[in-house]
Amino acid sequence: MSRTEVGTEDQRKPGRPTRPPLTEGAIADAALAIIDESGWQACTMKAVATRLGVRAPSLYHHVEGRPAILDLVRSTIAAEIHDPGILELPWDEAMLRFGTAYYRAFARHPNTIEVLSTTPVRDAITLQLYECFLQSLHRDGWDGARAFEALLGLEHLALGFAFEWNAEGLMLESARCAELGAPLLAEIVAERPEDQAALAESSFMSLLRRYIEMFRIPG
Amino acid sequence: MSRTEVGTEDQRKPGRPTRPPLTEGAIADAALAIIDESGWQACTMKAVATRLGVRAPSLYHHVEGRPAILDLVRSTIAAEIHDPGILELPWDEAMLRFGTAYYRAFARHPNTIEVLSTTPVRDAITLQLYECFLQSLHRDGWDGARAFEALLGLEHLALGFAFEWNAEGLMLESARCAELGAPLLAEIVAERPEDQAALAESSFMSLLRRYIEMFRIPG
Repeated sequence: MSRTEVGTEDQRKPGRPTRPPLTEGAIADAALAIIDESGWQACTMKAVATRLGVRAPSLYHHVEGRPAILDLVRSTIAAEIHDPGILELPWDEAMLRFGTAYYRAFARHPNTIEVLSTTPVRDAITLQLYECFLQSLHRDGWDGARAFEALLGLEHLALGFAFEWNAEGLMLESARCAELGAPLLAEIVAERPEDQAALAESSFMSLLRRYIEMFRIPG
Repeated sequence: MSRTEVGTEDQRKPGRPTRPPLTEGAIADAALAIIDESGWQACTMKAVATRLGVRAPSLYHHVEGRPAILDLVRSTIAAEIHDPGILELPWDEAMLRFGTAYYRAFARHPNTIEVLSTTPVRDAITLQLYECFLQSLHRDGWDGARAFEALLGLEHLALGFAFEWNAEGLMLESARCAELGAPLLAEIVAERPEDQAALAESSFMSLLRRYIEMFRIPG
């Protein structure tokens, strides 16, 4: 469905009360809000329609079904990350900026990680987000396959720490580690701050810098 | 609840038909089967009880609730990964073996990744799995905090590729990339095999080796 077909319903039905036009942006925002609150399984066509104050058949007039909704959600998050400015940066700074933005976007939307990690990428904004990252490495002489591998690994690191940032309380408690036969782990955990979000953040940033260093090694 | 209290119900109620004893192992297997099939949200106390052929109150006699069920599930997967043999290996081989086993276990149970990544680790087997990894690095002179960071990053890489291994079809199609303004990505994707599971596997193994090399850099 092209963007020009979207948002025309209110004009066709002048007798209905005025409501915000049913744009792709509005549909994506509603779907993302439902996923953030209740997860992907709760994000049915009916739930999105209800949130937008329309009936499900009206929504089907604008998006073909849940896979199309998911494309819109993926685009919305990709747009939060996408920064063509990285094309002007050396590859290491591009990787740092991309990785940080990627992590932060998914830390805001952890309930999207599983479904977006296991379904095909089909939307233009995500594909261009990837292209931009790959071009900024390619321009600095990177082989394509190696740049792609760097992209995948960076994504997975970022997503894992985005989950951790959202964990319910501390993932590990020193006393429990000591009690259950893990003395070295107990000692390490005791020396870390007790704020799970801060821990996830500092661990990710540290590993991200290390990850970038790793790609200075040839081959 | 200690293990000795478990599995005694059938002896107390001799009039009931014989069924497998309600052990922690049986409860964990039933819960994991439900999560594998339908996700964590479907894994209610009632659903686990039904699968075991008992009523929910009987199940509550053995486990306190969903958090306790989750501890059992985490233990079951940790047991699939745990290999004290890594203590005999140099740190790089230990990391390779641990990372591979971790990835394979979660590739078999992708529906557990989100919930296990966002809830506290409290069970003895997982804590000892971590301890064993940390000890094998520590024994080779690693600083504890650095070893712990290596563990976290390794987990997240493995989990991300475990998701990818389970993706519905190919994550990226070359023709679509070309069509939507991502020519370099299209070229890279065209040169890769078209088997998503094989792609996930080879990308993970390649990045795992690179990840291990990265920790040869001091600091």
